[in-house]
Amino acid sequence: MYKGGYAGKILRVDLTTKTAKEEPVPESLARNYMGGAGFAIKTLYDELKPGTSALGPENKLIFAVGPLTATGTSCSSRMAVAAKSPLTGAIGMALAGGHFPAEMKMAGYDMIIIEGKSDKPVYITIKDGEVRFRDAKKLSGMMTTDTQLFIKEELGDHNYRIACIGPAGERQVPMACIVNERRAAGRKGLGAVMGSKNLKAIAVRGTGRPAIANPEVFKTARAAMNKAMKDSPVLYSQFSKAGTPMVVDAMTEMGIYSIKNWSATGEINMVKGLGRATQDTMIITKNPCHDCPVACSQVKLVKSGPYAGYLSEGPEFETTYSLGSTVGVDYLPAVIAADRLCDEYGIDTISAGVAIGFAMELYEKGIITKKDTDGLELKFGNHAAMIEMLRKIAYQEGLGALLGQGTKKAAEKIGHGSADFAMQVKGLELPAYDVRGAKAHGLNYATSYTGADHNRGYAFQEIFDIPIPEKVDRIATKGKGKLTKWNQDTRAVTCDCATMCAFLLDMAVPGIACQNTADLVNAATGLDLTAADVEKIGERMNNVARLFNIGEGFTRKDDSFPKRIMTEPIKAGASKGQLISQKDLDEMLDEYYAERGWDKSGTPTAARLKELGIKKR
Amino acid sequence: MYKGGYAGKILRVDLTTKTAKEEPVPESLARNYMGGAGFAIKTLYDELKPGTSALGPENKLIFAVGPLTATGTSCSSRMAVAAKSPLTGAIGMALAGGHFPAEMKMAGYDMIIIEGKSDKPVYITIKDGEVRFRDAKKLSGMMTTDTQLFIKEELGDHNYRIACIGPAGERQVPMACIVNERRAAGRKGLGAVMGSKNLKAIAVRGTGRPAIANPEVFKTARAAMNKAMKDSPVLYSQFSKAGTPMVVDAMTEMGIYSIKNWSATGEINMVKGLGRATQDTMIITKNPCHDCPVACSQVKLVKSGPYAGYLSEGPEFETTYSLGSTVGVDYLPAVIAADRLCDEYGIDTISAGVAIGFAMELYEKGIITKKDTDGLELKFGNHAAMIEMLRKIAYQEGLGALLGQGTKKAAEKIGHGSADFAMQVKGLELPAYDVRGAKAHGLNYATSYTGADHNRGYAFQEIFDIPIPEKVDRIATKGKGKLTKWNQDTRAVTCDCATMCAFLLDMAVPGIACQNTADLVNAATGLDLTAADVEKIGERMNNVARLFNIGEGFTRKDDSFPKRIMTEPIKAGASKGQLISQKDLDEMLDEYYAERGWDKSGTPTAARLKELGIKKR
Repeated sequence: MYKGGYAGKILRVDLTTKTAKEEPVPESLARNYMGGAGFAIKTLYDELKPGTSALGPENKLIFAVGPLTATGTSCSSRMAVAAKSPLTGAIGMALAGGHFPAEMKMAGYDMIIIEGKSDKPVYITIKDGEVRFRDAKKLSGMMTTDTQLFIKEELGDHNYRIACIGPAGERQVPMACIVNERRAAGRKGLGAVMGSKNLKAIAVRGTGRPAIANPEVFKTARAAMNKAMKDSPVLYSQFSKAGTPMVVDAMTEMGIYSIKNWSATGEINMVKGLGRATQDTMIITKNPCHDCPVACSQVKLVKSGPYAGYLSEGPEFETTYSLGSTVGVDYLPAVIAADRLCDEYGIDTISAGVAIGFAMELYEKGIITKKDTDGLELKFGNHAAMIEMLRKIAYQEGLGALLGQGTKKAAEKIGHGSADFAMQVKGLELPAYDVRGAKAHGLNYATSYTGADHNRGYAFQEIFDIPIPEKVDRIATKGKGKLTKWNQDTRAVTCDCATMCAFLLDMAVPGIACQNTADLVNAATGLDLTAADVEKIGERMNNVARLFNIGEGFTRKDDSFPKRIMTEPIKAGASKGQLISQKDLDEMLDEYYAERGWDKSGTPTAARLKELGIKKR
Repeated sequence: MYKGGYAGKILRVDLTTKTAKEEPVPESLARNYMGGAGFAIKTLYDELKPGTSALGPENKLIFAVGPLTATGTSCSSRMAVAAKSPLTGAIGMALAGGHFPAEMKMAGYDMIIIEGKSDKPVYITIKDGEVRFRDAKKLSGMMTTDTQLFIKEELGDHNYRIACIGPAGERQVPMACIVNERRAAGRKGLGAVMGSKNLKAIAVRGTGRPAIANPEVFKTARAAMNKAMKDSPVLYSQFSKAGTPMVVDAMTEMGIYSIKNWSATGEINMVKGLGRATQDTMIITKNPCHDCPVACSQVKLVKSGPYAGYLSEGPEFETTYSLGSTVGVDYLPAVIAADRLCDEYGIDTISAGVAIGFAMELYEKGIITKKDTDGLELKFGNHAAMIEMLRKIAYQEGLGALLGQGTKKAAEKIGHGSADFAMQVKGLELPAYDVRGAKAHGLNYATSYTGADHNRGYAFQEIFDIPIPEKVDRIATKGKGKLTKWNQDTRAVTCDCATMCAFLLDMAVPGIACQNTADLVNAATGLDLTAADVEKIGERMNNVARLFNIGEGFTRKDDSFPKRIMTEPIKAGASKGQLISQKDLDEMLDEYYAERGWDKSGTPTAARLKELGIKKR
């Protein structure tokens, strides 16, 4: 029986030879990288040569949970999935919750490293440490819900938890995701990496429980965190009821909810149908992750009209933007249908929606025509066309094949100035927050090691008016360098490495996250980390990720924005007139690099690396 | 722990009071009615007053398995679901396979009788004899796959097997079905009855096994049946590979595969895309019922084109007709998509498709127009319109609300001679076999107690050229009365009461079905039935069903056909020129009634009832 903690284990799977072996988690890895994304990114940095093809057999796909996963700690059933990204060429790392992470830990593993490539489609089963490779030919082309059902039936036990790809991942669409139940490790094309390895799914079943080093202390630490959660003014009272769409109205009012490919931000009449009043009417139930008392997952169901019958766990705030406001659609049932279809095809809702919004702008500007769209009237607001285009992305048909490469590559191929309308950083499509009116969000999009990624250093201070570590003005640029480093490092360690849910950090424990994490992790594992050690782990990971990306050719010039952000002020609403000029960006980057101990080119200095104990490869 | 056999139990559930009680299966019931449909129909006959509203709380919804279910007998995980039908007003009985029937038996029950009506939506869980009523509010409006997933997650055990209704059943659409996994108790609107009771689902989980009275004899009987299955020239070699679509080509060649609402039967160029060559290319795997070595269920998946991603277990032969040939669609991916959507909405593929084909003919004839169809171009062959109309049927929108009532009632409301194009008997839409060229099929459609139902007395002799009980000419009318009685009685007892799969009877054990059933059932239960006793059980059940229907006002005039069958010869192909005139029908009915011991009005004589031991209520 699995004993867990840092009696924990790594499973290394070679798909080429269909073999698997166990390795212990080295204590130094645990001490310096915590778990989750820390484990995964450190492994990628150590084991991938620069220039490795993201869709080649040398890339590695890593699933890693945190030291608290399956220990009964609230909101800890999350995992990092990582590989070199086929969408960006940088580190690809995405988080997902649900039941799979806890089940993976209970089956015996803190990290699963998938290497090589199977000669034919397979799926892997892991049951309490027993690993098997199984033929997945019959599953080829299946949507993700059906895939999970058929695997469960074949295994004769429906209690397996399964992470899988859909048709898009099999086709190696660079914005394909990995889905467990209806949760996605959504961004950066990790589903395409899984597809490139001919791996359709991983099914896990575990009956173990990780051992707790110091149960009494652990109990106290858990209680402290649960109290902080209870004391939060928003976590249970609002977030638990509305989920992430809680912020749609606030973002709209602040004039930073991006609309029509960022051309119409602030025109709030365009997104009335996406507001919380409408969202709430469609909630039918919740479907919490394992060990989660918050249950932010709002299950919505369309009960009438053309999309009747579509159910999604969401749409999350970001999807309400990407399959809603940025494609000019404010008909929530269409967003729900599109959200579910993305989960079924296995494509990232954000990148797919933003790519379609991009194409809609090109269509309205005449840069592309019906010839390019196979006759689709691809105007903003045409939700039927959006839904058909999602299918084309998933199945690489016509314009969909191009858009599925991401807006950056699509613009390169389309030409005619279309790059100006490609809303991406480092090849990753922009999330919902119009950063022209929220500058720390902007700096984070520009510098995140995964590209434009709200999750890597979310500036909750600009949204919730929480003065931690200090009060900020969302419009100001000064101070955002320091703030962004703090946000990125604390978030990296608590959410990405310890794999605690991000919403705890934003809404319950923003000021005490590192101390809290130290207390819990020490009690669970027997380590003796201080809060400062914990924050340092976040910084360490961000530096290792930066080094990886530098190896792939990324430099300061890639810490940037699409032209629209830098030259076109927001036209309406509460953030009217705002933009982030090149000068603004340069000032913020200089401050940020200085705080990070990076030189002007954005390269970590030897001194800072030494301080962090990072050995360059 | 459940002991099974006729230590078996009946569960009587009262939804009004939310109570459940167990009753023993009386030995007389077992001896005279075997199980399955026998139990269910005898119960309905005894307990429902004539004139009971099919959608009122007084109707009873019954699930009943056979004495061999879950005993390890091949192909025995089937159940009868029965109630007074809201579509026909007659006995509604439909069979379904899958895993639910075996699990229900292992959970302890041979029959579940659902009475009354819950005041709010509920679902029932049955775990090894423990019955609970649970709130189903959150499930309201959910498609059937999602319904099953959410129930499993809520119960914390995904190994429950669940029978449920979709949005159509909740709305009491009279052609709504009951779905377990992707198997349906499809016809006669039993899903609407379930919906009328505010019962969204029944979830069963069982760990018991029915006791076997005489294990050694049972083993021998099982081996004999398995040998007969192996010896079948078609069961494994063909049927196992192609499933029911095996017969599409043969029916087409024989000119009895109905096309375009039966107006174009024989025009075989119209159905090329539905033939076995196409069907086979889309098979990706099988998904057999519990304890089934045949595995006829061919899972098909659309891998490209507008319906990419749709997967169905099927389409079965009948669905290939109803959502294919009779609506003029020969594009198999559209049939697969429509099939899956019917399963998700919970509507009967046959009735829904035939109703749409009926509407298409009315549209082409100008009896209805775009005003009636909400702008849909409802022509034969328009698969997008068919799929949209399925949604309208499920959600009772516009013309869909009318078609969902069935073609008989829809024609009454539409008028303008539309009744001539309503392809139904007793309100039940016709299956695929164009009976003008297969007269025993015709007599069975006319006389089946459930309406036009191929399953109640399938004349395999006309299709497979099997000379059992004797060689027949499919075109002839003479002798079809006697044949139909034999087909109906043997099928009733082996398939409907013993709940053995119909395909065994058709393809493996047609001549020895009753002896075989006697051997197996005697060994399993300790009864001492002869083959003649067994056949008599089938006859007994058919007579009880007839008495029930007579109580509801059905007479000889209802043992009839739509006008087209009786006046319009088949226009093309191998059965060109054939019809069943009123004279043909009268001759066949006279012979059939005489064989049955019924008078000229179709009423069982007192003498025959006495012989069968049936006491009139």
